[in-house]
Amino acid sequence: QELSSANLRRAAVPTSSTSLPAVVRDLAMSTNKGGGGGKKEVKKETKLGMAYKKDDNFGEWYSEVVVNSEMIEYYDISGCYILRPWAMEIWELLKEFFDAEIKKLKLKPYYFPLFVTENVLQKEKDHIEGFAPEVAWVTKSGKSDLEAPIAIRPTSETVMYPYFSKWIRSHRDLPLKCNQWCNVVRWEFSNPTPFIRSREFLWQEGHTVFATKEEADEEVLQILELYRRIYEEFLAVPVSKGRKSEMEKFAGGLYTTSVEAFIPNTGRGIQGATSHCLGQNFAKMFDITFENEKGERSMVWQNSWAYTTRSIGVMVMTHGDDKGLVLPPKVAPIQVIVIPVPFKDADTTGIKGACESAVYTLNQAGIRADLDARENYSPGWKYSQWEMKGVPLRIEIGPKDLANKQVRIVRRDNGTKVDIPSTDLVEQVRVLLDGFQANLLETAKAKRDACIVIISTWDEFIAALNDKKLILAPWCDEEEVEKDVKARTKGELGAAKTLCTPFDQPDLPSGTVCFASGKPAQKWSFWGRSY
Amino acid sequence: QELSSANLRRAAVPTSSTSLPAVVRDLAMSTNKGGGGGKKEVKKETKLGMAYKKDDNFGEWYSEVVVNSEMIEYYDISGCYILRPWAMEIWELLKEFFDAEIKKLKLKPYYFPLFVTENVLQKEKDHIEGFAPEVAWVTKSGKSDLEAPIAIRPTSETVMYPYFSKWIRSHRDLPLKCNQWCNVVRWEFSNPTPFIRSREFLWQEGHTVFATKEEADEEVLQILELYRRIYEEFLAVPVSKGRKSEMEKFAGGLYTTSVEAFIPNTGRGIQGATSHCLGQNFAKMFDITFENEKGERSMVWQNSWAYTTRSIGVMVMTHGDDKGLVLPPKVAPIQVIVIPVPFKDADTTGIKGACESAVYTLNQAGIRADLDARENYSPGWKYSQWEMKGVPLRIEIGPKDLANKQVRIVRRDNGTKVDIPSTDLVEQVRVLLDGFQANLLETAKAKRDACIVIISTWDEFIAALNDKKLILAPWCDEEEVEKDVKARTKGELGAAKTLCTPFDQPDLPSGTVCFASGKPAQKWSFWGRSY
Repeated sequence: QELSSANLRRAAVPTSSTSLPAVVRDLAMSTNKGGGGGKKEVKKETKLGMAYKKDDNFGEWYSEVVVNSEMIEYYDISGCYILRPWAMEIWELLKEFFDAEIKKLKLKPYYFPLFVTENVLQKEKDHIEGFAPEVAWVTKSGKSDLEAPIAIRPTSETVMYPYFSKWIRSHRDLPLKCNQWCNVVRWEFSNPTPFIRSREFLWQEGHTVFATKEEADEEVLQILELYRRIYEEFLAVPVSKGRKSEMEKFAGGLYTTSVEAFIPNTGRGIQGATSHCLGQNFAKMFDITFENEKGERSMVWQNSWAYTTRSIGVMVMTHGDDKGLVLPPKVAPIQVIVIPVPFKDADTTGIKGACESAVYTLNQAGIRADLDARENYSPGWKYSQWEMKGVPLRIEIGPKDLANKQVRIVRRDNGTKVDIPSTDLVEQVRVLLDGFQANLLETAKAKRDACIVIISTWDEFIAALNDKKLILAPWCDEEEVEKDVKARTKGELGAAKTLCTPFDQPDLPSGTVCFASGKPAQKWSFWGRSY
Repeated sequence: QELSSANLRRAAVPTSSTSLPAVVRDLAMSTNKGGGGGKKEVKKETKLGMAYKKDDNFGEWYSEVVVNSEMIEYYDISGCYILRPWAMEIWELLKEFFDAEIKKLKLKPYYFPLFVTENVLQKEKDHIEGFAPEVAWVTKSGKSDLEAPIAIRPTSETVMYPYFSKWIRSHRDLPLKCNQWCNVVRWEFSNPTPFIRSREFLWQEGHTVFATKEEADEEVLQILELYRRIYEEFLAVPVSKGRKSEMEKFAGGLYTTSVEAFIPNTGRGIQGATSHCLGQNFAKMFDITFENEKGERSMVWQNSWAYTTRSIGVMVMTHGDDKGLVLPPKVAPIQVIVIPVPFKDADTTGIKGACESAVYTLNQAGIRADLDARENYSPGWKYSQWEMKGVPLRIEIGPKDLANKQVRIVRRDNGTKVDIPSTDLVEQVRVLLDGFQANLLETAKAKRDACIVIISTWDEFIAALNDKKLILAPWCDEEEVEKDVKARTKGELGAAKTLCTPFDQPDLPSGTVCFASGKPAQKWSFWGRSY
């Protein structure tokens, strides 16, 4: 049986693991035409598997899965990565959702320059302090030195706000709502990781201006809810909404909210997206004022918010397994891959026709289905490749299926197989895709929840930290205490810090004390190591 | 009557023209609430007009129109511009069309890094010679010097092709079809102009790889036809398809095709978009080979092609008039602006209701209509503002229209007015928009064609050049001769050069000689000054 032999092959590990992506690619793209299962083919198929296991060597596993699934190609500048179609198509699907949602909120598309002068970049002192070490500077064009170095935007507050000051005069010019989809550059030196931490990345950045704090506060949460939906509804990644501590908030802002995910394998929290209320700090520095309805000069309230290609990496880390990627149907570029299984002497024309018909029927119903009709690969090899790429459903059609007017559907997440009549194809595929999407989120949520530990003392905190838990702790909410916790937990794996104070707060009985300072606790906060 | 007074106001020219955009903006965004036509309002309305006339001072007119229509804001780094929603929404509409078309051709979305190392950038010698003077170099991050300077992509051939070499092994990996939407940087110093020549711009760049020259040749023309459609069908700008001379072709390529537009006011040709066959030059330098079906190593054939935000500028130059922008309906962010005209004692509620109903009906029919319900501006002022922004159709609804169950529609291109029954609204608006779109292209084509002069001698050439004509000349097709023409026509306005050799060739009787060299002519080519 094709499937079980494919399963066997998957378990095999290549002999050389040092340059695995290249090995896999070389073989996957081999010109060897040996079709029917000779020695060469077996060798080829043996090498398609993953060299690393998620639970054994998470870092190597992650690099391998993003490369082998053809999402990422490493680039010859450290910290820069090539996003291949398998990643970009996911980015486009997320963008389609998010852009339509923010257009409902009257956001308008802008494009501001990549460059910003030193003078303007430095206007908001806390802001530049936060970003200065990571700024890339252009100092030359052709062979000439520029008169003054020019910065590449690490974010666009300082690029945009001088012009907001120019455009906003009256309360009638408010709210002003800008969004741009673009690249930004943060020349970080620590641990570049595809999607998660790269020197250039893609994002949307929304920048909005209001007459009142109330409007700004409201929008912060509207946007945060969209970010939650991106993670939970699309990427099937459970997140906690919450507020960042003073230490962790956006440089120059008033307060920062975020959706926080957690990677059980590394025991690290990861910031999924942030929605900041900037308050009036930038407005003061950039002189953004308006004449209100009473004819008085008032200062505006501002927000900025962003999510990035990091979201794709969080999804990979959350759902991937030892066979490769697992994609949630809502963002899978291909939701259903159809593979003909032509045994010797079978009606290959009939099988091919049934496959094409299945793809056509699914496409007509708005389901992203594709046919793998390559003749130089065995069905088993194709199974492995599409599993590597994380396609949610595989449809196999062989002679028996043809005779019975049925198709076999195999789920990527749990491997279950079901034979369904061709007449029920669209309906059943829809049910399966919906179930797949829900199952991914539930499974991830169960795993994440199993990592949450509620602690009350320093010793429990350290034990939980060593145990890679997501720690919910009563805290006095003092910056000095967070600094102190950081200092006391410094080490090879990085210090612990607050991830967020979740909006969803457990009871805090009076008399509860801070786990770190012993002072009265003000709130429950998530603590842990983070990306 | 509102309309004629608006016309009168339009004719007025502000007293100070040195900083007009600021003046207009200040006034347009004034907090002055004087609603009903007092002295202040008249002053405000007087200043909404354009300070420059298209035929008198084209350069200043262009700057004024892109700023006053709120497409562009000048930025504090020379040659960089802010694209505001009125420009970005057009860019998004063009992108929607083009991206869908290339996806039909199986182009896949990629994102390659912004940065490229010096070493890789210099691999193709002709290519780097073409771009080197304009390359922006990053040499610092934070306060540290980088080990080696890193270039910002002026185009992505050298960024991508080392990886093409890695990905392509077999004929089965071909064709490879990449496209990315991104920003590029060319640090030019001559005459920065919004959209037309800017140091950073947005574009799509397609990069494709084929097994045979025939496939590459075919795609060059498929893409060129899409570029023609962007200009002619969407932007209503007539273009000539043709081939570039050896001097003017893409640096490092085999041959370049382009769509060329012409700006009658300045008598300059302007390259609209280019579709290059790169031949095998880059393949040699980057070692991009594949094993063909016979098991032999072969070298690939490559294309690259791009169109940019320049296209928006060409459209502005082509259709704009002394009242401001004129937008083709297919790319107008708002196709129909509905303006209530509430006379004193009129049924303002009824009028507002009729306006809202018109917008709703049009939106439901897929027409981009919007309501200008602002109460602090007079209808006349609104007419002028939406004319400045180039909205194709204006609908006015006043008491008489309400009583007669009709609306008045005014065309932006020729000012014609028509009263139509509300029941025919959608149908009539569709007819008018289609007619508007067709009329713009016809008018522009007639103007362009009137500039074409066929010449045969040097004296005729110089006369036509001085007369700002688009010159079609018999040419020997020798590079030395083009260099010579450039040298002989050098001057304040820039030298003449070939624009393209149009595919649509007039008869070339045997014995025809080159206008410049007297040698036998090989072809008819367009010559002139260019942007």
